[in-house]
Amino acid sequence: MASSKFILSILVNNEAGVLTRVSSLFSRRGFNIDSLSVGETENPLISRITISAKGDEYTKEQLEKQLMKLHDVITVELMDMENTVMRELMMVKVKFKKGELTELMSAISVFRAKVIDLASNTATLELTGQSSKVDAFIEFLAPYGIIELCRTGVTAIGRGDYILKSES
Amino acid sequence: MASSKFILSILVNNEAGVLTRVSSLFSRRGFNIDSLSVGETENPLISRITISAKGDEYTKEQLEKQLMKLHDVITVELMDMENTVMRELMMVKVKFKKGELTELMSAISVFRAKVIDLASNTATLELTGQSSKVDAFIEFLAPYGIIELCRTGVTAIGRGDYILKSES
Repeated sequence: MASSKFILSILVNNEAGVLTRVSSLFSRRGFNIDSLSVGETENPLISRITISAKGDEYTKEQLEKQLMKLHDVITVELMDMENTVMRELMMVKVKFKKGELTELMSAISVFRAKVIDLASNTATLELTGQSSKVDAFIEFLAPYGIIELCRTGVTAIGRGDYILKSES
Repeated sequence: MASSKFILSILVNNEAGVLTRVSSLFSRRGFNIDSLSVGETENPLISRITISAKGDEYTKEQLEKQLMKLHDVITVELMDMENTVMRELMMVKVKFKKGELTELMSAISVFRAKVIDLASNTATLELTGQSSKVDAFIEFLAPYGIIELCRTGVTAIGRGDYILKSES
């Protein structure tokens, strides 16, 4: 079966141990997680884990079912990629030589990135967007020389009135 | 000893299992993680895990030492909070009534948030910033009625020329 990228949104009780149970379910099955982010929701007792990974239809469904059985997991949803807004945040530190800053600033403006910190020959930049935009910016910056890069991993929310329910 | 917020940046080999080992070290010791984000670095073989948590000096140092011993962990650094840029990304879906949109848009502009999606009585917003800014925006939006909220967790990068080295 064809393998494709998918996003799982998981609402969990904000308890020590639940993240370990979720991530070990993936590692036991030999699945690598492309990105994972965990943060509090509007209810401080509930956290939301967003996982981006690759797999076929069967795998996705199995993971969804298995995750649902874990202690402290409230809801699991395989996000509908067409009706979901996906964003990630990247910070990147890049080198530049004398005379290159103007060109670099033009690209920053095109990508709507922000300059967080500027030293004599390094700039620290921030970019928010879909993974494809983040990847394109990294590709643009590579020739300058990327010296450090961190990205948060994808977080995802349904479009319009769609809500991930905590009771299902 | 006084307990304070701290950020750990961990460079790891991009292998299944390493996230489980890192998170289980926290849960075995009964430590709750406030936020965690994992994403690829400039080197696709290496991922960066950023963990935000609370603890006293002794705890922080112990965690740093124990993490360093884990398989596939390359570097662990307790970030110097004064010389680190910390950012997180939030998406939030909020209700509004007829006549409230103008006021809501003003606040969005003050906080430099973005409108991702707008339905007849809900708006989906995106905000990037330090956790304190994100918290302030949530507090502002609460009276409107937050119906869904996801945040990526903090990611952190050193200011200026400072780099988290992969060989230490």
